[in-house]
Amino acid sequence: MAFRMNMITDKRLQTLQDSIEHDIPLARCMQWTLLAFAHDSVRACMPLAPNINDKQCAFGGSLVSAMTLCGWSLIHLLLDEAMLQAEVFVADSHVRYMTPVWTDMQLTAQLSAETPADYFLDRLRTRGAARAAVTAHVRGADQSTDAASLTAQFVAKLTAGEVK
Amino acid sequence: MAFRMNMITDKRLQTLQDSIEHDIPLARCMQWTLLAFAHDSVRACMPLAPNINDKQCAFGGSLVSAMTLCGWSLIHLLLDEAMLQAEVFVADSHVRYMTPVWTDMQLTAQLSAETPADYFLDRLRTRGAARAAVTAHVRGADQSTDAASLTAQFVAKLTAGEVK
Repeated sequence: MAFRMNMITDKRLQTLQDSIEHDIPLARCMQWTLLAFAHDSVRACMPLAPNINDKQCAFGGSLVSAMTLCGWSLIHLLLDEAMLQAEVFVADSHVRYMTPVWTDMQLTAQLSAETPADYFLDRLRTRGAARAAVTAHVRGADQSTDAASLTAQFVAKLTAGEVK
Repeated sequence: MAFRMNMITDKRLQTLQDSIEHDIPLARCMQWTLLAFAHDSVRACMPLAPNINDKQCAFGGSLVSAMTLCGWSLIHLLLDEAMLQAEVFVADSHVRYMTPVWTDMQLTAQLSAETPADYFLDRLRTRGAARAAVTAHVRGADQSTDAASLTAQFVAKLTAGEVK
C-alpha cells in the first residue's frame, strides 16, 4: 500500500492539541495528547492514572473516548491539509476490548482501506458531505498486541459556500 | 414482558455511586450520577457542561463512556442483589450517534431480552462466568427520542470459591 506524505507541521499539531484541551473537558481529564500525523494516520498517548477503573486498569470508557478522539483528530488534520473547513462528527462505532491495560497507553488511528483520503476529500468537495471509515487501536507500553480496537464512521459536512 | 422487582436500597445505590466516583476519575469528570435501579434497569444523569465538545454539544466520548458506565452499574447491582461477588468488564460495544445533545442528559440501561437476569445469574452461579447483553440510551432533557444508543456485552467472573 502506498502512503501519502502529509504536510501538517508540528505547530499545526500543537494548535489542534491546544484547541482540543480547551474545547473538550473530557480530553483534558484524560490527559490525551496528540503526538504525530503521517501517512494519513495519527498517533496519540494517554497516561493510566487519570483513566483507571475500580480494578486499577484502564476504564473502558477512557479507551473508547481516546480512540474516538484519535479518529476525530485524523479527519480534522486531513481537512486542514486540504484547506477545507467542515463540521466533523462520529456517526457510529464498534469497539472490542481484548485485554486489560495496566500501563500508560499508545494510540493510533488510520483511515480504513474502504475510504482512502483522496476518495474522502473528493466526495467532500463535490457533494458537500462525506463519510470516512476509521480504525483505531490502543495498547499498553508493555504490550505487543492491541488491547482494544475501534472501527467508526465519521461524517464531515462542509461549512456553507465551500462546495465546488 | 414481566419485570422482576428489585430489592436494592437507596443506600446501596449511594454506596455504588460513591465507589464509582472514588475509583473512576473519568466518571467524576463527567459528573455521571446514578439515579435509580428498578425492573432490572438503571437510570442515570449527566450535565452537559463537563461533557461538551468543540461545537458545544455533548462529546461522543462522553456519551459512550456514560452509557458503558450505566451497563457496568446495572450488572453490579444485579450481582449485589443476588449476593454474588464478581469482576465485571465490558467485552465489546456498538454505538449509534443519532442526533446532537445540547442539554443535560438522561441515561438508561437494561438487560437485552437475550440474557434475562435469571438466566445470566444462573449461568454465573453454575459456570463461574457469564455474559450479559445490555442496551443503553441517552437523550437530552428536551428530546423525545434517543440521541445515542449502545449495545454491549459484559462479562462477569465470580471470584474464586464461589462457583456452586
